[in-house]
Amino acid sequence: MSKKLPTRSEDFSLWYNELVKNAGLADNSGVRGCMVIKPYGFAIWELMKEQLDKMFKETGHQNAYFPIFVPKSLFEAEEKNAEGFAKECAVVTHYRLKTDPEDKSKLIVDPEAKLEEELIVRPTSEAIIWNTYKGWIQSYRDLPLLINQWANVVRWEMRTRLFLRTSEFLWQEGHTAHATKQEAIVEAKQMHDVYAHFAENWMAMPVIKGFKSDSERFAGADDTFTIEALMQDGKALQAGTSHFLGQNFAKAFDVEFQTAEGGKEHVWATSWGVSTRLIGGLIMTHSDDEGLVLPPKLAPYQVVIIPFLNKKKEEQNELLISKSNEIKAELEKFGIRVQIDTDVTKRPGFKFAEYELKGYPVRMVVGPRDLENNQVEIARRDTKEKSLQNIDGIGASINELLNTIQNNLFNKAKSYRDTHTTEVSTFEEFKSVLDTKGGFISAHWDGTEATEEQIKDLTKATIRCIPLDAENEEGTCVFSGKPSQKRVLFAKAY
Amino acid sequence: MSKKLPTRSEDFSLWYNELVKNAGLADNSGVRGCMVIKPYGFAIWELMKEQLDKMFKETGHQNAYFPIFVPKSLFEAEEKNAEGFAKECAVVTHYRLKTDPEDKSKLIVDPEAKLEEELIVRPTSEAIIWNTYKGWIQSYRDLPLLINQWANVVRWEMRTRLFLRTSEFLWQEGHTAHATKQEAIVEAKQMHDVYAHFAENWMAMPVIKGFKSDSERFAGADDTFTIEALMQDGKALQAGTSHFLGQNFAKAFDVEFQTAEGGKEHVWATSWGVSTRLIGGLIMTHSDDEGLVLPPKLAPYQVVIIPFLNKKKEEQNELLISKSNEIKAELEKFGIRVQIDTDVTKRPGFKFAEYELKGYPVRMVVGPRDLENNQVEIARRDTKEKSLQNIDGIGASINELLNTIQNNLFNKAKSYRDTHTTEVSTFEEFKSVLDTKGGFISAHWDGTEATEEQIKDLTKATIRCIPLDAENEEGTCVFSGKPSQKRVLFAKAY
Repeated sequence: MSKKLPTRSEDFSLWYNELVKNAGLADNSGVRGCMVIKPYGFAIWELMKEQLDKMFKETGHQNAYFPIFVPKSLFEAEEKNAEGFAKECAVVTHYRLKTDPEDKSKLIVDPEAKLEEELIVRPTSEAIIWNTYKGWIQSYRDLPLLINQWANVVRWEMRTRLFLRTSEFLWQEGHTAHATKQEAIVEAKQMHDVYAHFAENWMAMPVIKGFKSDSERFAGADDTFTIEALMQDGKALQAGTSHFLGQNFAKAFDVEFQTAEGGKEHVWATSWGVSTRLIGGLIMTHSDDEGLVLPPKLAPYQVVIIPFLNKKKEEQNELLISKSNEIKAELEKFGIRVQIDTDVTKRPGFKFAEYELKGYPVRMVVGPRDLENNQVEIARRDTKEKSLQNIDGIGASINELLNTIQNNLFNKAKSYRDTHTTEVSTFEEFKSVLDTKGGFISAHWDGTEATEEQIKDLTKATIRCIPLDAENEEGTCVFSGKPSQKRVLFAKAY
Repeated sequence: MSKKLPTRSEDFSLWYNELVKNAGLADNSGVRGCMVIKPYGFAIWELMKEQLDKMFKETGHQNAYFPIFVPKSLFEAEEKNAEGFAKECAVVTHYRLKTDPEDKSKLIVDPEAKLEEELIVRPTSEAIIWNTYKGWIQSYRDLPLLINQWANVVRWEMRTRLFLRTSEFLWQEGHTAHATKQEAIVEAKQMHDVYAHFAENWMAMPVIKGFKSDSERFAGADDTFTIEALMQDGKALQAGTSHFLGQNFAKAFDVEFQTAEGGKEHVWATSWGVSTRLIGGLIMTHSDDEGLVLPPKLAPYQVVIIPFLNKKKEEQNELLISKSNEIKAELEKFGIRVQIDTDVTKRPGFKFAEYELKGYPVRMVVGPRDLENNQVEIARRDTKEKSLQNIDGIGASINELLNTIQNNLFNKAKSYRDTHTTEVSTFEEFKSVLDTKGGFISAHWDGTEATEEQIKDLTKATIRCIPLDAENEEGTCVFSGKPSQKRVLFAKAY
């Protein structure tokens, strides 16, 4: 069970993979490139979903569900979008199997059940949704249409990594329709803000808000807003994107509406999404060589209570368990998620390692001696500090401790991010920072795709975003020497 | 919007279809056999999910997520299961599209991207899950494994109907593993009880609990428990099933565990599921010729407040709206879901019809004259009764009314079901009841598949279940005249 993890400095990628498996978050499956999300990992996703869903509803969105299949003719309607996803599409061509005439225990695809038109397993749902919106939108009175969907999508991947890049993943995709360009842009920015707020305040993961360069933009969008986080190995993670789609899909699917003035116009659109990839970001932002570190707001259990049991002292055990249950009830009054471990077959040291691996924010040991002093022993997962805590008022004090841990994790990650964001003026510096400390590199760029491409070829670093708060600053492109008015952020990325 | 519905007696099937569309629950999509679940329909599903998920967790289950694809070799491992679903499988054969060389604006399937092994889009997940459990279960200490998944599944259908039979649908599927046969049977029965409890206490839909005959059993199960409901057209609906799978999947996937005594045994299994089909059952149980009737516990909004606005009386409108908001806040204290309609462009009569169509359990009109008497006008959707209600204590009184409506809907449906359950002794009677009043027919059956088959061929009625509470009663089979010890329930079914 508690096999020792490789350390982050030894092999970050191996550390990540072993951690995901050993902590019971996810596993590879019998299907190439697809993962199984195990109960503990899924419990984190449920907490994320619950909070995001609340935020979507508070901003006026409703959930709906659209088909998983997209007929090829619809898929190809918006050309840029189709081109962007064509190379990673799972395609359904048949709708029936039959017994293999050569081996009755086997099945083969029935050649007579070939579909007239192939179906694409959705890599994203703009096509099927805009084909549906065509029937829903006639007049300005039908707008705005503010819809979100929680779903699975498939993008065929050759090189996969649990949570970060899998052929199937879970996500949410918002798809909104508006009467004006301005309103659609406001919506795209609003959801960008929602994502940033969630990342920072729930995941304790600081993010840079910015927009994508032309070449990194979503296929079919006029503008892509992104939140970019920095992982502990100095690589960036695109954690969520919100797209202003202009009238591209409305034109491709012929979605027009009657304006209040009686004219006809194409509808303006946005789409936005985050996925189970966030769990990968959560892990790589906070965890350490002992295992997972979870921010309290997204920890399936925030506190584990371990009564210090002794096989030979049944009466004492009863007392310790009963006291533990009392404390649990007290914590639950404060909305704290608590687990009690009363397994007498495992030694405390084994249990401690196990809960450390699983990232429970607070461990509480209820022992006979401390109990005499009306105290329990508390250990914080983030700092590994231990302390004694009076049982009186323990609900309020643990609640406060959880807030402290949440804030500490954010501050720690932010301080890492800030010290790993480096302004450079020359391409030599650029390469040297990238090779040594990594992180975000803030550099002037001449705005051309050619330069972006060459930098990528030479260093593997890409433009993660043009930060929204980038100040105007006269400078020269770090690569071409041409004039530039703004710094952008480069990094190697997941 | 409020197009008049066909009546149930005219054409039940057309009534159902128009109701589903007009009330904004679901719609056909651009993909043959797949539906779009619209926001209002999805809100009902969310309420169902929330409650079921709570009940699953209270009985010790955890959620997880398994891949949507099943490699053909895994799919065919459990032969009966594979055979049962082979004819309705969507099959992925390729993983890439490419530009059509003959028309650059089109895409074609890239013949070079053919999968070595075809992937089945899951029609159910036993195969992929048991292949995974193989890696999770070594010892009796790993048991029981109590897992549920919320997911989409695909079963290719030639004749589809919104919610009731669609090629893709949403569902949950529980998959549990146990050390003993007895424990697995207890689990299957427990979840059967959970489904019956949900159907009766949340959906207000009475159900018969029973088990399936050999021919109606789930492919790969040793026993299938079912809940069967009766729709207003006298046809039965299978609303949920829970299967005792014996060791069939453990043997097919070679899942053995070390027993406490040190031996090796195959694991015992259950699986159980309900789907978006429940929404179809909900509609056909309660709704009427004016539209949807929703039991309060599953109504997205339980009360609509309509202030009686007059375009010319702005000051009065303000007062009415402010009072409506006060009442809304008061109702929300009781956990009641409330919507206020302050649209001045639509006449009250139009609004009334609209909320009737959408099945809001209670309509409350806040008018200037009633307000002088500290009253509002209440209309119940289920009985269409109107009454005046004092505003003092309105939270408690509406809360009670919602309970009354919930119970009334159940009692009404139960009384319909009871009067449409007929004991027959001869096959003439059997056919005559089926042709005239329909419903459940309680009849003696000789227990053979041959008789079951012949009755089905002659009448289209099938054995819905052998009721768990069927009493031992000496009799003769309604068809063959052979001896029988129990009555079973026949009906035409969805």
